[in-house]
Amino acid sequence: MKIPSFIVKTSGIVCLLLGGMNLAAAESPSLVISESDITALRQASGGLLEQSMQDNKRLADAALTEGIVVPWPKDAGGGYTHEQHKRNYKAMYAAALQFQLSGESRYSKYVTDMLNAYAKMYPTLGLHPEKKEQTPGKLFWQSLNEAVWLVYTIQAYDMVADALTDEQKSHIQNNLLFPVADYLSKGQPQTFDKIHNHGTWAVAAVGMVGYATGREDYVAQALKGLDLSGESGFYKQLDKLFSPDGYYTEGPYYQRYALMPFVWFAKAIQTNDPDKAIFAYRDGILLKAIYTVIELSYNGLFLPINDAIKDKGIKTEELVQALAIAYDITSDRSLSDIARQQERVSLSAGGVALSKIIASNSVAPYPYESKIYRDGASGKQGALALMRSGNNETGTLVVSKNTSQGMGHGHYDRLSWQLYDNGNEVVTDYGAARYLNVEAKYGGHYLQENDTWAKQSVAHNTLVVDQKSQFNADLKEANKKPAEQVDFVSGELADISIGRINTAYEGVNFTRVQALIKPESVEPFVIDVVSIQSDAVHQYDLPLHFNGQIIDHNLSDYQSFNTWKPMGEDNGYQHMLLRGQGNSASSKNRLTWLLGDRFYSYTYGHYSDSDDSAKTLFFQLGANDPNHNLRRDQGAIRRLTASNVVMYSVIEPHGEYNGTAEYVTNAYSRLKSLDYKVTQSGAELTVNMGETGTFTLVLAGGDKSSGPTEAKVVKEKN
Amino acid sequence: MKIPSFIVKTSGIVCLLLGGMNLAAAESPSLVISESDITALRQASGGLLEQSMQDNKRLADAALTEGIVVPWPKDAGGGYTHEQHKRNYKAMYAAALQFQLSGESRYSKYVTDMLNAYAKMYPTLGLHPEKKEQTPGKLFWQSLNEAVWLVYTIQAYDMVADALTDEQKSHIQNNLLFPVADYLSKGQPQTFDKIHNHGTWAVAAVGMVGYATGREDYVAQALKGLDLSGESGFYKQLDKLFSPDGYYTEGPYYQRYALMPFVWFAKAIQTNDPDKAIFAYRDGILLKAIYTVIELSYNGLFLPINDAIKDKGIKTEELVQALAIAYDITSDRSLSDIARQQERVSLSAGGVALSKIIASNSVAPYPYESKIYRDGASGKQGALALMRSGNNETGTLVVSKNTSQGMGHGHYDRLSWQLYDNGNEVVTDYGAARYLNVEAKYGGHYLQENDTWAKQSVAHNTLVVDQKSQFNADLKEANKKPAEQVDFVSGELADISIGRINTAYEGVNFTRVQALIKPESVEPFVIDVVSIQSDAVHQYDLPLHFNGQIIDHNLSDYQSFNTWKPMGEDNGYQHMLLRGQGNSASSKNRLTWLLGDRFYSYTYGHYSDSDDSAKTLFFQLGANDPNHNLRRDQGAIRRLTASNVVMYSVIEPHGEYNGTAEYVTNAYSRLKSLDYKVTQSGAELTVNMGETGTFTLVLAGGDKSSGPTEAKVVKEKN
Repeated sequence: MKIPSFIVKTSGIVCLLLGGMNLAAAESPSLVISESDITALRQASGGLLEQSMQDNKRLADAALTEGIVVPWPKDAGGGYTHEQHKRNYKAMYAAALQFQLSGESRYSKYVTDMLNAYAKMYPTLGLHPEKKEQTPGKLFWQSLNEAVWLVYTIQAYDMVADALTDEQKSHIQNNLLFPVADYLSKGQPQTFDKIHNHGTWAVAAVGMVGYATGREDYVAQALKGLDLSGESGFYKQLDKLFSPDGYYTEGPYYQRYALMPFVWFAKAIQTNDPDKAIFAYRDGILLKAIYTVIELSYNGLFLPINDAIKDKGIKTEELVQALAIAYDITSDRSLSDIARQQERVSLSAGGVALSKIIASNSVAPYPYESKIYRDGASGKQGALALMRSGNNETGTLVVSKNTSQGMGHGHYDRLSWQLYDNGNEVVTDYGAARYLNVEAKYGGHYLQENDTWAKQSVAHNTLVVDQKSQFNADLKEANKKPAEQVDFVSGELADISIGRINTAYEGVNFTRVQALIKPESVEPFVIDVVSIQSDAVHQYDLPLHFNGQIIDHNLSDYQSFNTWKPMGEDNGYQHMLLRGQGNSASSKNRLTWLLGDRFYSYTYGHYSDSDDSAKTLFFQLGANDPNHNLRRDQGAIRRLTASNVVMYSVIEPHGEYNGTAEYVTNAYSRLKSLDYKVTQSGAELTVNMGETGTFTLVLAGGDKSSGPTEAKVVKEKN
Repeated sequence: MKIPSFIVKTSGIVCLLLGGMNLAAAESPSLVISESDITALRQASGGLLEQSMQDNKRLADAALTEGIVVPWPKDAGGGYTHEQHKRNYKAMYAAALQFQLSGESRYSKYVTDMLNAYAKMYPTLGLHPEKKEQTPGKLFWQSLNEAVWLVYTIQAYDMVADALTDEQKSHIQNNLLFPVADYLSKGQPQTFDKIHNHGTWAVAAVGMVGYATGREDYVAQALKGLDLSGESGFYKQLDKLFSPDGYYTEGPYYQRYALMPFVWFAKAIQTNDPDKAIFAYRDGILLKAIYTVIELSYNGLFLPINDAIKDKGIKTEELVQALAIAYDITSDRSLSDIARQQERVSLSAGGVALSKIIASNSVAPYPYESKIYRDGASGKQGALALMRSGNNETGTLVVSKNTSQGMGHGHYDRLSWQLYDNGNEVVTDYGAARYLNVEAKYGGHYLQENDTWAKQSVAHNTLVVDQKSQFNADLKEANKKPAEQVDFVSGELADISIGRINTAYEGVNFTRVQALIKPESVEPFVIDVVSIQSDAVHQYDLPLHFNGQIIDHNLSDYQSFNTWKPMGEDNGYQHMLLRGQGNSASSKNRLTWLLGDRFYSYTYGHYSDSDDSAKTLFFQLGANDPNHNLRRDQGAIRRLTASNVVMYSVIEPHGEYNGTAEYVTNAYSRLKSLDYKVTQSGAELTVNMGETGTFTLVLAGGDKSSGPTEAKVVKEKN
């Protein structure tokens, strides 16, 4: 049922129709899926759409075959009753949609029966026996799951409402929809009014119940918070949870998850209150958020920023749904490039349109660009800098993480970076230590090793001072202190990012310049310059977590250990086994490895005020891991002791290993020389790449207590 | 030029046209590629064929652009001159073929110029400066490369011969083709007359020179050996190098390589001497060899039997060529299923036909079957047993290696096994320790670790007695003592293989029964029973090399080590780091891991005459590997001390991990109980798989000094 938009618009106070008196006939459906979607779907055929339609019918038919199974809540996440209630809301959604598409009453009957079964049980439920302390649910152990359940269930209800008698509607509303909505709103104000994605699920659920049942009080609370002050609720969440560039501070893994209730509820608002122009709100923040999560991916998988399980990517349901809604709003044909990779479309008008574009071979390539994604609601909490060359499936991507902490799921990894190339993770981030839904792995929760390893600084490609984590791994401190994105330039020859953090370690200032150089004829390569200033002498560790088989290195006095011992006792070092170490020269150390069919060479040196000897240590994970929870990832650490030092390097992809055709080309680094020198205005790092040319990274603007603030790349032909 | 077949047929002695007097006009080409191929190619278009034609044109055009570069031989394998001479023969072949297809003289001119350049240099060459001791080459460091060079070059010559003047032909023959052929035949009798694939390359090269130039003496020597006695040469190689099932004792990796000269030379014989019916020789041994190498693969890659680099598979050039020739002979439509996976076809009449089948969507699935491949020329040197369920790309495949040693490239791994499932290697074989063509890795040769690890028994999934390798890793001994394939049955419910080796360890008899059980509704699973008899007490280690992340195990008193130490000093153990160990019960130990989106559970126990405690040890490779040559593979070892013992187990794939849709199903083993009992007639292993049923492996026929000789599987519903 549509709430006449003038009421909301003219009254300002949205409480004209409070209470349960709302049994006027609905012109269903009118939430995320509306009449126009159904019309488009009924007329469509072929392509990905056909496949998605068949998938939905299969799901709905399987649900009907299984029948109504609504068990008494008992199990925690991953357990039987938990999974069954999850299956149920998806089943109801699929069957209700199938009813809309086919008009067959067996589907609406199934949904009605299920809703009635829940309506019978819900009022009798206490809190879940396995309840989470702060946010207990009734059907589920945590209220978050209950909100997700309601977001799906209210849509199912909305799609079968036409088939219900007024009495049936009243029964379901009063015994199920309203009680759940009440429990999720006034029953859990700490969640409902929280500026957090859990709050968004609750707000979306309650707001959609409001639209579907005419309960404007729910809608108003959803939009402006329980007290209607606007200090919480959907608008405030839109204001606070995304940066002006649409970046969600927890990173794309959670952004994808958080996006679903935002986008769905926004679509429901658009359907019911088009004059609110919700998709234009805050300069189109929701569309920016969708585009951003698309862009924060490589070869189909999300960049593992903060807590992120690395098998998740653009094929997720959330992004399939969001994509179709975005297309519906924008008609941006390049979104079809994403749908192509998703290999399915959502069942909506947008999905129909995307499917048609793909079927007619009219896909426009998505224009991935080198750019920064500012962090923080105001955009002043640092940024994630992405530098790209080539396409997003096989090209080169450098990610410089100069963001804020990212709240509770954040890692202590200011100024860390990642490299993607040739379809692979090359310089890697561990992501989260978690096996989602695998009960044997600590019930599918975050593992202890997520704290002891994955969040620690040394688990990332960033500076570690005196073997401690940034901010001493104190979340409260870390939350206050974002990195700075000092500069970012994107050009034809090179993209350059400068990040800085002077608060991660007491008395240590640390600036990182990263550049992706894009020569015309050969693979792009990366220059990385880490400038560290301190008044005191420290041990500096710069880890490089890389993927692949070591081919060779040129370290002197290399010792290979036959007994592998842990490299420390805490801060992540307790998990690292030392397998070998050698002396690093001050310049032109080189490590080459092979990943897939391509070689990678890391050439590095340092410029320091002390002549203390530098070492390179090779490690692998596995110590203090009694439950085999960690992947056996490897890496190298550059270690030296100094006060002020510049650690520079070049990473270059090169050559080809072809096992099928039995040839190898360019197995050796192209780099001829790598020279760092201090100049009057700053410093220069000159990279002689042989025939490819000589490239000089010119740094300026820094002084003794701060790294460079400006950078450019100059090329000469050799 | 065709040698009239009656001469060969009627004379018996094939030396009527000796000498260089052979400048009659050739009806070219008439070796592997003949007039009928060219006709078919000129008429064809579209599909894979089109693509392959474009690839050839691109290769030929690139060669013309590069021009004639014939450097003085200097570098070993992988080095510049080595690679350039390799590029040259491929370039000549591509350009010559392009001349046949287009008639454009620039292509024939390029080939002629290149041949002349070689003809100028070759007579002045001594042995290669980096020559291999036993088998030196002139253009290359080893004569094998020189033979390969000639096999390609003579075909290129044959395809441009029409464009040459008699004088040009004479010059090229006398200064290049005959000198190389002479060097490879009478110049290297130790290779030419050897029953070995290196001999086949030499024989094929010399024989094809014979056909192309009318030098029947070359043809005769190629077919029957230098002394024409028939004790060596092509026929003898066909007799000796393949088993009656077409299995090549070194395994599919080398079979693929060895196949090329066999198949090409056979095709040249067929073209020139069709009455020899070479493809019917020895009951069609060459076709069997082609089919066998196709079948000894999983998901596109060859099974890593013996020395094998694991990235090699059915897409290799050799198999693309062999497939088209096989189709040309057999018209077997199921070969198109292989061409589909190869994603290209050879430029030949067979290639044209295969491309057409694929383009018209008429591919017939290749009928992979459970079967044994007997080893040894007589078929009495054991066998490789393959048990299959489902297709060869995502189905289940068990490989039981009950073969002979496989000569110098063989591993000490009698009765080892491998498991493939869901597109992955699950229970793995290390393959070879080698980075082919990667100069930094010991020049691309086999690494020292190939001997110290990859060949050793503990590097395989087979029994290790007292931490020594089978036959004490004595190749001469091992060559004499094949395993026995005691029995093999293939049925609807189960395939069963029984292998035995009583000579690998002094005083230890060892039989292995493996069964692939194929229930109707769920994933197939494997039963493995290792029966060991000895009069003395030994330490028995049974390694399981597996791929994936350990989820959990139920070992008691598990110790996880934070310092990883080598597990021994030699026989491969020096490379293994012990990361944890626990006590194994006598029955129902369980280890579960996750690989891709599927779980695997290994449930195991033992039945022994001693009650010595059994342990399970988890290890990973990495010790004594100063050059980072080994992959960091992992595994578990079951260890116990006994004289007579039966070690049994079940491995089952189960469930699904879906990270995209966030669900997990059947994460736990289905196995309810696993009981081994001795019966009057032998023994029974009963596997209760819950709803799937109860399966009993009934073993019979063995006595105290020999394991079972008969086995069957019986199923009951639960």
